[in-house]
Amino acid sequence: MNKINTIAIVGGTHGNELTGVYLAKKFKNNQDLITRPSFSSQVLLSNPKAIQECRRYIDKDLNRCFSPADLQNSTLISYEDTRAKEIQKILLSPQGLPVDVIIDLHTTTSNMGLSILLSSEHPLLLRLSAYLSLISDDVKVCCLPNSLSGVYLDSLSEFGFAIEVGAVPQGVLYAELFQKTEKLILAALDYFDAYNQGQLPKIPSTLTIYEYTGAIDYPRNAQGEIEAMIHPQRQFQDYQPLNPKDPIFLTFSGQEILYEGASTVYPIFINEAAYYEKGVAMCLTQKKTVNYNNS
Amino acid sequence: MNKINTIAIVGGTHGNELTGVYLAKKFKNNQDLITRPSFSSQVLLSNPKAIQECRRYIDKDLNRCFSPADLQNSTLISYEDTRAKEIQKILLSPQGLPVDVIIDLHTTTSNMGLSILLSSEHPLLLRLSAYLSLISDDVKVCCLPNSLSGVYLDSLSEFGFAIEVGAVPQGVLYAELFQKTEKLILAALDYFDAYNQGQLPKIPSTLTIYEYTGAIDYPRNAQGEIEAMIHPQRQFQDYQPLNPKDPIFLTFSGQEILYEGASTVYPIFINEAAYYEKGVAMCLTQKKTVNYNNS
Repeated sequence: MNKINTIAIVGGTHGNELTGVYLAKKFKNNQDLITRPSFSSQVLLSNPKAIQECRRYIDKDLNRCFSPADLQNSTLISYEDTRAKEIQKILLSPQGLPVDVIIDLHTTTSNMGLSILLSSEHPLLLRLSAYLSLISDDVKVCCLPNSLSGVYLDSLSEFGFAIEVGAVPQGVLYAELFQKTEKLILAALDYFDAYNQGQLPKIPSTLTIYEYTGAIDYPRNAQGEIEAMIHPQRQFQDYQPLNPKDPIFLTFSGQEILYEGASTVYPIFINEAAYYEKGVAMCLTQKKTVNYNNS
Repeated sequence: MNKINTIAIVGGTHGNELTGVYLAKKFKNNQDLITRPSFSSQVLLSNPKAIQECRRYIDKDLNRCFSPADLQNSTLISYEDTRAKEIQKILLSPQGLPVDVIIDLHTTTSNMGLSILLSSEHPLLLRLSAYLSLISDDVKVCCLPNSLSGVYLDSLSEFGFAIEVGAVPQGVLYAELFQKTEKLILAALDYFDAYNQGQLPKIPSTLTIYEYTGAIDYPRNAQGEIEAMIHPQRQFQDYQPLNPKDPIFLTFSGQEILYEGASTVYPIFINEAAYYEKGVAMCLTQKKTVNYNNS
């Protein structure tokens, strides 16, 4: 396996997700924290205008702007499309190649704990995830492919991934979550450094991952307005089993709506604020145990 | 005492506070819920453009635009200043007089439960609050004067007040909080109806209220950027005593900052998302027991 030579830590891809914004600022001002002997690291605040206005985005979701086609499309000139092209140029190694690893920092109003969001199940990323899972019971590992409604920023690197922490409101910092997220990032850097030096720590031989299978929208009327809320029994129950006929929504007049799927699924991103407009009340996953080459 | 003839229920004064937005929509579609024999009622979605964009405001905070001077100032032409003048004309009785009561619905990322926010300690409002306190232990009563940084929408009526519920993120509905807030509003309408009919329910002879005494900002650097977060021991502790030398903030590097006040206070609006830009980390109150004429 090739060495990891360059790592970028990115915050503020969504300007109102403050944990990542302030961690990136902290790392910018304290480069020693993210310096390791075997690779070079950089920090980027990716959506400065959205950070300034404490909004998710200005014109469109920056974290859906990174497909190769969109990056080459000169007719896409929104603020975020333009910024995506700039970011592609910024996140290069000293040799002008894409950085090897991007860690993109996000928060969510869903109860996702410390989630590691992978776009691929490459053994290097699975082993990293297994190592990070040892740190805290809050760590969960999901595989969400790109291409749902666009391509993520971390796809600019071969081994990119996102860290998604919550539940925390948009525009708010929770000190405890800030500290846990920092610890997780620094542990990931330690892991890559150990990997480069051929001194990989011992990790369990299997890992539980949650693979994206689809999404459920809120019930809506003919005008597209939502007609129900997440059921109280489902709120904060990310990663918990949802069985056929379990309550899933509650209408504004108090009627329960049951889950009509045929088998047990594991919802994540339950009641994420930014997904109301995307037509997503929750994402569904299947729970799976994976083996990987633990050499 | 004069009769209450007209009541307005207002939602969406801040467009990303969805509990009020969707309760107002529900009441608009189900007028029977808010109809009582002894007064007329109306419902208003006060900031439609901000609701559409799911933002607190477009140009400025609508809930600070209602001073008599501002309402008469024709040079104030921002979206919210213009809308405030429209709202003043909309919230009139059939006789062209201001409505008697405005109930303005808000949410907060602070753990405020079901808070009733009064601008005055008029006995009618204190008795109403005492009645509503019987409904749930989550009900708390605060007195926050206008004039901090502007004048509130509910000041357009003699007996206006706000209901402030949380903790809930901006842009999110929690079904349980939605139902509790609805119950509280309907109970307030029942109370006014009973008042009009001279059939006031029995209520306790005293009431605990929290009177605003000031606010504390986050520690900031010379550029105005925050340098610390709410201390984990203080998060969600709204209405709980803060004593001299209690931890209040935690810096990004993990240093505790202690409360340097001389006496015990009762913070509210701890870590409210919308107040970062206002320079408010929390509001301070003093706890007080009031007697009122319980006749």
